[in-house]
Amino acid sequence: MAQLKNIPFQQVDFTGGFWQDRQTLNRDVTVGAVERRFRDTGRFAAFDCNWTPESELPRPHIFWDSDLAKWIESVAFLLQKGPQPALYASARAIIDAIAAHQQSDGYFNIFHTVVEPENRFRYRDRHELYCLGHLIEAAVAWYNATGEHDFFDTLDRYIDLVIRVFQKEKSAAFTTPGHEEIELALLKLYRLKPDKKYLDLALFFLNERGPQDQLLGDWAKDKYNQSHLPVRQQHTAEGHCVRACYLYCAMADAAALTGDTALLTACRNLFDDITEKKMYLTGGIGSSHHGEAFTVPYDLPNDTAYAETCAAIALAMFAQRMQIIDPDGKYADVVERTLYNGILSGVSLDGISFFYENPLEICLADHEKNRSVNGGDRLPITQRLEVFDCSCCPPNVTRLLASLGDYVFTAGERDLYIQQYIPCRASFDGMDVTVKTAYPADGTVTVAVHGGNGKRLHLRVPGWCKAWTCSAPCKTERGYACVDVTQDDFTVTITFDMTPQWVAANPLVKADAGKLALTRGPVVYCAEGVDHPFSLFAAAVDPQAPVEVKESYGGLPTLQGKGRLSAAGDGLYYPASESEKQTPVTLRFIPYFTFANRGSSDLLVWLRRA
Amino acid sequence: MAQLKNIPFQQVDFTGGFWQDRQTLNRDVTVGAVERRFRDTGRFAAFDCNWTPESELPRPHIFWDSDLAKWIESVAFLLQKGPQPALYASARAIIDAIAAHQQSDGYFNIFHTVVEPENRFRYRDRHELYCLGHLIEAAVAWYNATGEHDFFDTLDRYIDLVIRVFQKEKSAAFTTPGHEEIELALLKLYRLKPDKKYLDLALFFLNERGPQDQLLGDWAKDKYNQSHLPVRQQHTAEGHCVRACYLYCAMADAAALTGDTALLTACRNLFDDITEKKMYLTGGIGSSHHGEAFTVPYDLPNDTAYAETCAAIALAMFAQRMQIIDPDGKYADVVERTLYNGILSGVSLDGISFFYENPLEICLADHEKNRSVNGGDRLPITQRLEVFDCSCCPPNVTRLLASLGDYVFTAGERDLYIQQYIPCRASFDGMDVTVKTAYPADGTVTVAVHGGNGKRLHLRVPGWCKAWTCSAPCKTERGYACVDVTQDDFTVTITFDMTPQWVAANPLVKADAGKLALTRGPVVYCAEGVDHPFSLFAAAVDPQAPVEVKESYGGLPTLQGKGRLSAAGDGLYYPASESEKQTPVTLRFIPYFTFANRGSSDLLVWLRRA
Repeated sequence: MAQLKNIPFQQVDFTGGFWQDRQTLNRDVTVGAVERRFRDTGRFAAFDCNWTPESELPRPHIFWDSDLAKWIESVAFLLQKGPQPALYASARAIIDAIAAHQQSDGYFNIFHTVVEPENRFRYRDRHELYCLGHLIEAAVAWYNATGEHDFFDTLDRYIDLVIRVFQKEKSAAFTTPGHEEIELALLKLYRLKPDKKYLDLALFFLNERGPQDQLLGDWAKDKYNQSHLPVRQQHTAEGHCVRACYLYCAMADAAALTGDTALLTACRNLFDDITEKKMYLTGGIGSSHHGEAFTVPYDLPNDTAYAETCAAIALAMFAQRMQIIDPDGKYADVVERTLYNGILSGVSLDGISFFYENPLEICLADHEKNRSVNGGDRLPITQRLEVFDCSCCPPNVTRLLASLGDYVFTAGERDLYIQQYIPCRASFDGMDVTVKTAYPADGTVTVAVHGGNGKRLHLRVPGWCKAWTCSAPCKTERGYACVDVTQDDFTVTITFDMTPQWVAANPLVKADAGKLALTRGPVVYCAEGVDHPFSLFAAAVDPQAPVEVKESYGGLPTLQGKGRLSAAGDGLYYPASESEKQTPVTLRFIPYFTFANRGSSDLLVWLRRA
Repeated sequence: MAQLKNIPFQQVDFTGGFWQDRQTLNRDVTVGAVERRFRDTGRFAAFDCNWTPESELPRPHIFWDSDLAKWIESVAFLLQKGPQPALYASARAIIDAIAAHQQSDGYFNIFHTVVEPENRFRYRDRHELYCLGHLIEAAVAWYNATGEHDFFDTLDRYIDLVIRVFQKEKSAAFTTPGHEEIELALLKLYRLKPDKKYLDLALFFLNERGPQDQLLGDWAKDKYNQSHLPVRQQHTAEGHCVRACYLYCAMADAAALTGDTALLTACRNLFDDITEKKMYLTGGIGSSHHGEAFTVPYDLPNDTAYAETCAAIALAMFAQRMQIIDPDGKYADVVERTLYNGILSGVSLDGISFFYENPLEICLADHEKNRSVNGGDRLPITQRLEVFDCSCCPPNVTRLLASLGDYVFTAGERDLYIQQYIPCRASFDGMDVTVKTAYPADGTVTVAVHGGNGKRLHLRVPGWCKAWTCSAPCKTERGYACVDVTQDDFTVTITFDMTPQWVAANPLVKADAGKLALTRGPVVYCAEGVDHPFSLFAAAVDPQAPVEVKESYGGLPTLQGKGRLSAAGDGLYYPASESEKQTPVTLRFIPYFTFANRGSSDLLVWLRRA
């Protein structure tokens, strides 16, 4: 098993470009917008733990703790790059509140402190350990940012309680958490503070998960929370996507920390099952709102796509961990696919509103059917919201964007991997690395390495790229162009052909049968009704016609393609020959992540092939 | 308004061919099979009205009365064509039981006699008037078949109670039935026995339906049972399809009986809205199981298609009524479309099992997702059943098949319309009409009219037919080839080109975008997985390649077409150029109505166009 290390974002400074713009928006607008809406909805005040049935306060939700934990983590990430006194104060107040309301035995959970204190550790689906997991991640980030270890110490007492109740006494009503998260959090904590109790507890939760768990009861019957098989026997991705990918993250981390090859094999198979059978072109996963879950291979409907923002983030997190233990460009390819598409679509261009679901098709006319009590299939909303009742996604987006530098480099003793092409400077292992590029607006990337003589540079050649050139001698290996660094000041330029590409889906994806999608580099494009004076559903694209690169929107070029419009006459069915009466049309394509920023509109990623 | 008359099946004798075979199977197998399963499930015994909460008997369902009523009606239709002593005895016993358990004020309803007697006429959704409607239809048929008017008299007392309670005293808890049916039944009765009270009651129910109904309450808010607007203001088909089309039948009948042109206009618009925006290629309607209802225009998903057998029958009934008051071949076209496809698919080739839902696509792999408690979208079952909990469809099929002769001829003073091409002999209006044809296996139809000199013969030119010839001078008028009958023994031959045709859908039907379906004459074809050693979902059809007519299956030819198979490789997404690696394949097409007679299998009506 390979044992690369990840270069953390603290050591990576973005120096401009697309992602720095998004990080700036995230820092200056989004993190504050999330705070404001979390305050409005009572999530901050809930940490005062003074809700009673008689109070006017909103009743705390079982995972409000985690909403704020992810927000605090976001703030901590920002603090690493510069002072944020107001955000610091808001976060610090919550950390203090947690300490103030921690129970004498170490327990902390808002809902089970004020709403149902009698039901501590009683229901597996109550997210107590999930909340603790997010608090641990927040505390790790807080310590890294501020050096303050009190948050950390508070949670350590809670972890000790969990070790006693779950691992030693086995006195809880369940064995493993209903929503995974604490496993990866404990392993993250263990890397920071290598106390074996953290590793042991994480491995305990991993190893106990499955039908062998005596306390599982009915939960064993389904795949919803990955309890259908022992984790090392799981080779197909099943159930709730976020739960699944958080589990797989922990499995990958555990494999890295323990050298457990059975875990590695399971992780490889799970990753391939997702990305070769169950992933949207945008990197979205979880095609059904039923259980927010994976369904069956190739079941990827576009209009009812669930494709939760958190699930795409979780997939990126899983892929990032895999590239450390199994160096292959396919992992960073998936990170890239999710970042530019299914994750970024989750936040509006003005940075203040969010999608929980990220459909690949919207037909506004079909939304009429949901307005009748006759019902109809559930369709995702067509405009982003500033907050949701279940608002897990917004702070997940903010923490990801704030720590995006985590995804750029991995390194081994001799090897340096450039996983994502983002203009930046980084210093590690005695090297200074500078990346200059306007990627993905432009396909040229220049990497300068100072002090790396003798290293081997691995430049990812994206899976979507069919033509590229490199200024230095190189050979291709598992998705990377490998270049030997032959001098102390070494510069190499790699250029990727960014010609727009029409993409087809595996024919077994019924929803995309006979259709094409337009991509340019890693960016998936879409057509919106607002740009077209005709129904997009009556249009078909001509993949032979040239696609023109046009003005930017949302920071990246728009594209213009040609197609044909079918005459949508009266009636329903015609001889095929009659249906060929078509007129040429021009189609405008915008980056998928920018959809729904100009009001509700029809949307198509996959268009019929003319 | 035109005022044709319908030639009833009593005057029409089938003389062979496809439909006579189906009628024979219906008579000799299906009617008995339905009786057997209705006995097994307690539906016959329920008429003894001796269920109690303590009894071992199954609790009667609120519309078991109607299940048996349609079965009795089927038996009565058979009795018109020959003796059926066993069926007669079974039906007669139920008629006697109804009389025996009729309440002193005339009321009869099993459920509200034995289960909830305190709730007579209290809940609009309890189907009491719907059941009475079906009993009236049965009594009319029974009288026509046997001359026995006691059934009739029994129900007349019940009708008098309904007139008193609903129309005069207005003492029921609701004004109009939640499930329409009694309206068309009363108008059928009125034609047989022109007592104005029947017409008045039917018109009362029609006129009171709508938001102006003071007792409507919440029901007014939805379209589910067509109470959203007064009937004359309804111009789009909404809500539960069977309810809707039964209502539209009554509206058309009332228009015919009263000359009400506002009703005629509404009916025309409703028919066009259905058939030009909301009807499957098979004639199925009601695309969603939510409310078993119409949804929005062009929303016609193939895999989740509800397309209830009863709804297709109800559409045929509506179309039949329209061709009487608005002579246009489009109505009989729809009758034909439903008969050969969406209705006939409702019963197995061996005549003993039934589909309630009639999907146009089955992907067995997708059914796996329904096996997980994570759920997934509901999909129709893949094999017919002998009986359902809600078993309205089987006796609806049997009564339709037994009375199919009703759909062949309409006539005016001077005009004779041949609406459906079925080999038969008929005598009416002093004429003997003989139709000879092997339609739709063959496209030639010979009509001989004896005693019709001076009449005008209207031979329907099906909407699907693009080329035809007629042996006599004719001109085309509203979908008919009009031929003057110029002598007492007059024969004309019309020949329709039966070359298989590839059909495309209106581009706004998203589910069929980029796809084609194969038809031959009125028959829609499909491909089943069982006939193909590859996934049908990876295949695309070539509409330029010749389609061969092959051996029969289910009484009609199968077809063989050519297509291309996409290499379904690993992975999900490829450059469009790579997806063009295809190999030629031969595809077998069977008539749609024969699908699922050889075990569960993948099914496709609409295939990708190569």
